[in-house]
Amino acid sequence: MKNLEKYIRDIPDFPKRGVLYKDITPLLQDPVAMRTAVQIFLDNLGDIKVDKVVGIESRGFFFATLLAEKLDAGFVPVRKPGKLPYKTISEAYNLEYGTDMLEMHVDAIKEGENVLIHDDVLATGGTAFAACNLVEHLGGNIVHCNFLVELSFLKGRERIKKYPVESLLKY
Amino acid sequence: MKNLEKYIRDIPDFPKRGVLYKDITPLLQDPVAMRTAVQIFLDNLGDIKVDKVVGIESRGFFFATLLAEKLDAGFVPVRKPGKLPYKTISEAYNLEYGTDMLEMHVDAIKEGENVLIHDDVLATGGTAFAACNLVEHLGGNIVHCNFLVELSFLKGRERIKKYPVESLLKY
Repeated sequence: MKNLEKYIRDIPDFPKRGVLYKDITPLLQDPVAMRTAVQIFLDNLGDIKVDKVVGIESRGFFFATLLAEKLDAGFVPVRKPGKLPYKTISEAYNLEYGTDMLEMHVDAIKEGENVLIHDDVLATGGTAFAACNLVEHLGGNIVHCNFLVELSFLKGRERIKKYPVESLLKY
Repeated sequence: MKNLEKYIRDIPDFPKRGVLYKDITPLLQDPVAMRTAVQIFLDNLGDIKVDKVVGIESRGFFFATLLAEKLDAGFVPVRKPGKLPYKTISEAYNLEYGTDMLEMHVDAIKEGENVLIHDDVLATGGTAFAACNLVEHLGGNIVHCNFLVELSFLKGRERIKKYPVESLLKY
Protein backbone atom coordinates (compact mmCIF):
# COMPACT_ATOMS: atom_id res chain seq x y z
CA MET A 1 0.00 0.00 0.00
CA LYS A 2 1.34 3.37 -0.97
CA ASN A 3 1.46 6.16 1.55
CA LEU A 4 -0.94 8.58 -0.09
CA GLU A 5 0.05 11.51 2.09
CA LYS A 6 3.31 12.02 0.25
CA TYR A 7 1.35 12.71 -2.95
CA ILE A 8 -0.44 15.71 -1.44
CA ARG A 9 1.48 18.95 -1.89
CA ASP A 10 1.11 21.85 0.53
CA ILE A 11 0.70 25.23 -1.19
CA PRO A 12 0.93 28.14 1.26
CA ASP A 13 -1.32 31.18 0.74
CA PHE A 14 -3.55 29.64 -1.94
CA PRO A 15 -6.15 30.63 -2.99
CA LYS A 16 -5.57 33.46 -0.52
CA ARG A 17 -3.17 34.53 2.17
CA GLY A 18 -3.16 32.38 5.27
CA VAL A 19 -4.68 29.30 3.63
CA LEU A 20 -2.54 26.16 3.33
CA TYR A 21 -3.93 24.51 0.23
CA LYS A 22 -3.77 20.74 -0.23
CA ASP A 23 -2.82 20.14 -3.87
CA ILE A 24 -3.90 16.68 -5.04
CA THR A 25 -2.38 16.90 -8.54
CA PRO A 26 0.78 14.92 -7.63
CA LEU A 27 -1.49 12.05 -6.62
CA LEU A 28 -3.48 12.32 -9.87
CA GLN A 29 -0.25 12.10 -11.85
CA ASP A 30 0.70 8.78 -10.29
CA PRO A 31 -1.33 5.83 -11.57
CA VAL A 32 -0.42 3.58 -8.64
CA ALA A 33 -1.42 6.23 -6.09
CA MET A 34 -4.69 6.82 -7.97
CA ARG A 35 -5.46 3.12 -8.03
CA THR A 36 -4.64 2.81 -4.33
CA ALA A 37 -7.01 5.64 -3.44
CA VAL A 38 -9.82 4.13 -5.53
CA GLN A 39 -9.26 0.74 -3.91
CA ILE A 40 -9.44 2.18 -0.38
CA PHE A 41 -12.68 3.96 -1.26
CA LEU A 42 -14.11 0.70 -2.61
CA ASP A 43 -12.94 -1.37 0.35
CA ASN A 44 -14.58 1.06 2.74
CA LEU A 45 -17.85 0.99 0.81
CA GLY A 46 -17.97 -2.77 1.23
CA ASP A 47 -20.79 -4.36 -0.71
CA ILE A 48 -23.28 -1.51 -0.52
CA LYS A 49 -25.19 -1.33 -3.80
CA VAL A 50 -24.60 2.09 -5.41
CA ASP A 51 -26.74 3.23 -8.36
CA LYS A 52 -25.31 6.71 -8.86
CA VAL A 53 -22.08 8.44 -7.90
CA VAL A 54 -22.46 12.20 -7.55
CA GLY A 55 -19.27 14.23 -8.15
CA ILE A 56 -19.12 17.85 -7.03
CA GLU A 57 -17.68 20.43 -9.46
CA SER A 58 -15.03 20.21 -10.46
CA ARG A 59 -12.25 18.37 -8.61
CA GLY A 60 -14.86 15.94 -7.34
CA PHE A 61 -15.18 14.71 -10.93
CA PHE A 62 -11.69 13.14 -10.88
CA PHE A 63 -12.54 10.25 -8.59
CA ALA A 64 -16.31 10.20 -8.99
CA THR A 65 -16.16 8.81 -12.53
CA LEU A 66 -13.57 6.21 -11.47
CA LEU A 67 -15.74 5.13 -8.55
CA ALA A 68 -18.83 5.00 -10.76
CA GLU A 69 -17.03 2.75 -13.22
CA LYS A 70 -15.80 0.37 -10.53
CA LEU A 71 -19.23 0.26 -8.85
CA ASP A 72 -21.05 -0.24 -12.16
CA ALA A 73 -23.01 2.90 -11.30
CA GLY A 74 -23.99 6.00 -13.26
CA PHE A 75 -22.12 9.27 -12.80
CA VAL A 76 -23.91 12.53 -11.99
CA PRO A 77 -22.19 15.93 -11.94
CA VAL A 78 -23.28 18.60 -9.47
CA ARG A 79 -22.31 21.96 -10.92
CA LYS A 80 -22.22 25.69 -10.39
CA PRO A 81 -25.19 27.66 -11.75
CA GLY A 82 -25.55 27.91 -15.52
CA LYS A 83 -23.29 24.98 -16.39
CA LEU A 84 -25.86 22.20 -16.67
CA PRO A 85 -27.87 22.56 -19.88
CA TYR A 86 -31.10 20.69 -19.03
CA LYS A 87 -33.75 21.39 -16.37
CA THR A 88 -32.16 21.67 -12.94
CA ILE A 89 -32.92 21.92 -9.26
CA SER A 90 -30.67 24.15 -7.20
CA GLU A 91 -29.56 24.55 -3.61
CA ALA A 92 -27.84 27.51 -1.95
CA TYR A 93 -24.90 27.13 0.39
CA ASN A 94 -23.00 29.58 2.54
CA LEU A 95 -19.61 31.02 1.70
CA GLU A 96 -17.44 33.06 4.01
CA TYR A 97 -19.19 36.12 2.59
CA GLY A 98 -22.59 35.56 1.00
CA THR A 99 -23.93 32.43 -0.66
CA ASP A 100 -23.41 30.38 -3.79
CA MET A 101 -25.53 27.75 -5.53
CA LEU A 102 -25.17 24.20 -6.79
CA GLU A 103 -27.32 22.61 -9.47
CA MET A 104 -28.26 19.09 -10.49
CA HIS A 105 -30.28 17.89 -13.46
CA VAL A 106 -33.86 16.97 -12.48
CA ASP A 107 -33.51 13.55 -14.11
CA ALA A 108 -30.12 12.76 -12.58
CA ILE A 109 -31.41 10.61 -9.73
CA LYS A 110 -34.48 8.38 -9.70
CA GLU A 111 -36.63 7.86 -6.62
CA GLY A 112 -35.11 5.23 -4.34
CA GLU A 113 -31.71 5.05 -6.02
CA ASN A 114 -28.70 4.51 -3.78
CA VAL A 115 -26.29 7.41 -4.08
CA LEU A 116 -22.64 7.95 -3.18
CA ILE A 117 -21.57 11.59 -2.83
CA HIS A 118 -17.93 12.33 -3.65
CA ASP A 119 -15.72 15.40 -3.53
CA ASP A 120 -11.97 15.86 -3.34
CA VAL A 121 -12.00 17.89 -0.12
CA LEU A 122 -14.35 18.06 2.86
CA ALA A 123 -13.87 21.54 4.35
CA THR A 124 -16.85 23.29 6.01
CA GLY A 125 -19.21 20.73 4.50
CA GLY A 126 -21.36 23.39 2.85
CA THR A 127 -21.13 22.06 -0.69
CA ALA A 128 -21.45 18.43 0.41
CA PHE A 129 -24.56 19.30 2.45
CA ALA A 130 -26.06 21.14 -0.52
CA ALA A 131 -25.32 18.16 -2.80
CA CYS A 132 -26.99 15.81 -0.28
CA ASN A 133 -30.08 18.03 -0.25
CA LEU A 134 -30.27 17.98 -4.05
CA VAL A 135 -30.10 14.18 -4.07
CA GLU A 136 -32.77 13.83 -1.38
CA HIS A 137 -34.99 16.34 -3.15
CA LEU A 138 -35.04 13.92 -6.09
CA GLY A 139 -35.80 10.98 -3.80
CA GLY A 140 -32.31 9.50 -3.73
CA ASN A 141 -31.05 7.50 -0.78
CA ILE A 142 -27.57 8.67 0.28
CA VAL A 143 -25.61 5.62 1.31
CA HIS A 144 -22.17 7.18 1.74
CA CYS A 145 -20.16 10.41 1.36
CA ASN A 146 -16.45 10.14 0.68
CA PHE A 147 -13.60 12.57 0.24
CA LEU A 148 -9.94 12.32 -0.58
CA VAL A 149 -8.95 14.99 1.95
CA GLU A 150 -10.69 16.19 5.12
CA LEU A 151 -9.77 19.47 6.81
CA SER A 152 -10.94 18.27 10.22
CA PHE A 153 -10.57 21.63 11.96
CA LEU A 154 -13.35 23.04 9.76
CA LYS A 155 -15.76 20.44 11.17
CA GLY A 156 -17.46 19.69 7.84
CA ARG A 157 -18.27 16.20 9.08
CA GLU A 158 -20.77 17.75 11.51
CA ARG A 159 -22.83 19.17 8.64
CA ILE A 160 -23.39 15.77 7.05
CA LYS A 161 -23.37 13.61 10.19
CA LYS A 162 -26.61 11.85 9.29
CA TYR A 163 -24.70 9.99 6.55
CA PRO A 164 -21.70 7.64 6.67
CA VAL A 165 -18.67 9.84 5.94
CA GLU A 166 -15.18 8.75 5.02
CA SER A 167 -12.01 10.60 4.07
CA LEU A 168 -8.66 9.08 3.11
CA LEU A 169 -6.43 11.84 4.45
CA LYS A 170 -7.21 14.01 7.47
CA TYR A 171 -5.50 17.31 8.35
CA MET B 1 -22.30 -2.45 -28.75
CA LYS B 2 -24.61 0.28 -27.56
CA ASN B 3 -25.59 3.06 -29.90
CA LEU B 4 -23.99 5.98 -28.08
CA GLU B 5 -25.83 8.61 -30.07
CA LYS B 6 -29.09 8.00 -28.24
CA TYR B 7 -27.37 9.02 -24.97
CA ILE B 8 -26.62 12.51 -26.26
CA ARG B 9 -29.43 14.99 -25.62
CA ASP B 10 -29.96 18.03 -27.83
CA ILE B 11 -30.57 21.24 -25.87
CA PRO B 12 -31.69 24.11 -28.14
CA ASP B 13 -30.45 27.64 -27.40
CA PHE B 14 -27.84 26.68 -24.78
CA PRO B 15 -25.65 28.33 -23.65
CA LYS B 16 -27.08 31.01 -25.94
CA ARG B 17 -29.74 31.51 -28.60
CA GLY B 18 -29.11 29.65 -31.83
CA VAL B 19 -26.73 27.06 -30.38
CA LEU B 20 -27.83 23.41 -30.32
CA TYR B 21 -25.96 22.06 -27.30
CA LYS B 22 -24.96 18.40 -27.10
CA ASP B 23 -25.67 17.27 -23.52
CA ILE B 24 -23.58 14.24 -22.58
CA THR B 25 -25.05 13.76 -19.08
CA PRO B 26 -27.48 10.98 -20.15
CA LEU B 27 -24.44 9.01 -21.33
CA LEU B 28 -22.60 9.65 -18.05
CA GLN B 29 -25.61 8.33 -16.12
CA ASP B 30 -25.51 4.99 -17.89
CA PRO B 31 -22.66 2.71 -16.81
CA VAL B 32 -22.88 0.50 -19.89
CA ALA B 33 -22.76 3.48 -22.25
CA MET B 34 -19.80 4.92 -20.29
CA ARG B 35 -17.95 1.62 -20.48
CA THR B 36 -18.68 1.32 -24.20
CA ALA B 37 -17.28 4.80 -24.87
CA VAL B 38 -14.13 4.06 -22.86
CA GLN B 39 -13.65 0.78 -24.72
CA ILE B 40 -13.96 2.43 -28.14
CA PHE B 41 -11.38 5.05 -27.10
CA LEU B 42 -9.03 2.28 -25.95
CA ASP B 43 -9.55 0.17 -29.07
CA ASN B 44 -8.74 3.14 -31.27
CA LEU B 45 -5.58 3.91 -29.32
CA GLY B 46 -4.33 0.40 -29.99
CA ASP B 47 -1.14 -0.40 -28.16
CA ILE B 48 0.35 3.09 -28.12
CA LYS B 49 2.13 3.63 -24.80
CA VAL B 50 0.58 6.59 -22.96
CA ASP B 51 2.30 8.12 -19.93
CA LYS B 52 -0.12 10.96 -19.19
CA VAL B 53 -3.72 11.70 -20.08
CA VAL B 54 -4.50 15.41 -20.16
CA GLY B 55 -8.14 16.33 -19.47
CA ILE B 56 -9.39 19.81 -20.34
CA GLU B 57 -11.53 21.66 -17.75
CA SER B 58 -13.98 20.60 -16.82
CA ARG B 59 -16.07 18.14 -18.81
CA GLY B 60 -12.86 16.69 -20.20
CA PHE B 61 -12.16 15.38 -16.70
CA PHE B 62 -15.01 12.84 -16.90
CA PHE B 63 -13.36 10.50 -19.37
CA ALA B 64 -9.73 11.55 -18.94
CA THR B 65 -9.43 9.94 -15.49
CA LEU B 66 -11.12 6.78 -16.75
CA LEU B 67 -8.76 6.59 -19.73
CA ALA B 68 -5.75 7.25 -17.48
CA GLU B 69 -6.76 4.40 -15.20
CA LYS B 70 -7.25 1.95 -18.06
CA LEU B 71 -3.96 2.99 -19.70
CA ASP B 72 -2.03 2.84 -16.42
CA ALA B 73 -1.12 6.49 -17.05
CA GLY B 74 -1.10 9.59 -14.88
CA PHE B 75 -3.87 12.16 -15.14
CA VAL B 76 -3.16 15.86 -15.71
CA PRO B 77 -5.84 18.58 -15.53
CA VAL B 78 -5.62 21.62 -17.81
CA ARG B 79 -7.55 24.42 -16.15
CA LYS B 80 -8.78 27.97 -16.43
CA PRO B 81 -6.52 30.64 -14.89
CA GLY B 82 -6.21 30.76 -11.12
CA LYS B 83 -7.45 27.23 -10.47
CA LEU B 84 -4.16 25.34 -10.35
CA PRO B 85 -2.32 26.08 -7.11
CA TYR B 86 1.29 25.33 -8.05
CA LYS B 87 3.58 26.99 -10.62
CA THR B 88 1.94 26.98 -14.04
CA ILE B 89 2.55 27.70 -17.69
CA SER B 90 -0.28 29.27 -19.63
CA GLU B 91 -1.50 29.58 -23.18
CA ALA B 92 -4.06 31.97 -24.66
CA TYR B 93 -6.77 30.88 -27.07
CA ASN B 94 -9.36 32.78 -29.06
CA LEU B 95 -13.00 33.06 -28.17
CA GLU B 96 -15.71 34.49 -30.37
CA TYR B 97 -14.96 37.85 -28.74
CA GLY B 98 -11.56 38.22 -27.09
CA THR B 99 -9.31 35.54 -25.66
CA ASP B 100 -9.12 33.23 -22.68
CA MET B 101 -6.28 31.26 -21.11
CA LEU B 102 -5.54 27.69 -20.10
CA GLU B 103 -2.99 26.66 -17.50
CA MET B 104 -1.02 23.52 -16.70
CA HIS B 105 1.31 22.78 -13.80
CA VAL B 106 4.99 23.06 -14.80
CA ASP B 107 5.71 19.58 -13.41
CA ALA B 108 2.69 17.92 -15.02
CA ILE B 109 4.56 16.45 -18.00
CA LYS B 110 8.14 15.25 -18.16
CA GLU B 111 10.30 15.62 -21.25
CA GLY B 112 9.63 12.81 -23.71
CA GLU B 113 6.46 11.51 -22.08
CA ASN B 114 3.73 10.23 -24.38
CA VAL B 115 0.56 12.25 -23.91
CA LEU B 116 -3.08 11.70 -24.81
CA ILE B 117 -5.21 14.87 -24.93
CA HIS B 118 -8.89 14.43 -24.10
CA ASP B 119 -11.93 16.69 -24.04
CA ASP B 120 -15.65 16.01 -24.22
CA VAL B 121 -16.27 18.16 -27.31
CA LEU B 122 -14.12 19.22 -30.26
CA ALA B 123 -15.63 22.49 -31.50
CA THR B 124 -13.35 25.17 -33.01
CA GLY B 125 -10.30 23.34 -31.65
CA GLY B 126 -9.05 26.42 -29.82
CA THR B 127 -8.81 24.86 -26.37
CA ALA B 128 -7.42 21.57 -27.72
CA PHE B 129 -4.75 23.46 -29.66
CA ALA B 130 -3.83 25.47 -26.54
CA ALA B 131 -3.62 22.27 -24.48
CA CYS B 132 -1.34 20.71 -27.13
CA ASN B 133 0.93 23.75 -26.99
CA LEU B 134 1.17 23.50 -23.20
CA VAL B 135 2.16 19.84 -23.43
CA GLU B 136 4.77 20.50 -26.11
CA HIS B 137 6.16 23.43 -24.15
CA LEU B 138 6.96 20.94 -21.37
CA GLY B 139 8.57 18.53 -23.86
CA GLY B 140 5.68 16.07 -24.07
CA ASN B 141 5.04 13.98 -27.15
CA ILE B 142 1.36 14.12 -28.17
CA VAL B 143 0.40 10.69 -29.43
CA HIS B 144 -3.36 11.18 -29.77
CA CYS B 145 -6.24 13.60 -29.21
CA ASN B 146 -9.68 12.19 -28.58
CA PHE B 147 -13.14 13.61 -28.01
CA LEU B 148 -16.54 12.21 -27.25
CA VAL B 149 -18.32 14.62 -29.60
CA GLU B 150 -17.06 16.49 -32.66
CA LEU B 151 -18.94 19.45 -34.13
CA SER B 152 -17.49 18.88 -37.60
CA PHE B 153 -18.89 22.09 -39.13
CA LEU B 154 -16.63 24.13 -36.81
CA LYS B 155 -13.57 22.48 -38.38
CA GLY B 156 -11.69 22.06 -35.10
CA ARG B 157 -9.87 19.06 -36.55
CA GLU B 158 -7.98 21.45 -38.85
CA ARG B 159 -6.43 23.22 -35.86
CA ILE B 160 -4.84 20.06 -34.50
CA LYS B 161 -4.23 18.21 -37.77
CA LYS B 162 -0.62 17.46 -36.94
CA TYR B 163 -1.84 14.93 -34.36
CA PRO B 164 -3.98 11.80 -34.68
CA VAL B 165 -7.53 12.92 -33.83
CA GLU B 166 -10.52 10.77 -33.02
CA SER B 167 -14.10 11.51 -31.99
CA LEU B 168 -16.80 8.99 -31.16
CA LEU B 169 -19.79 11.02 -32.34
CA LYS B 170 -19.75 13.53 -35.19
CA TYR B 171 -22.37 16.19 -35.85
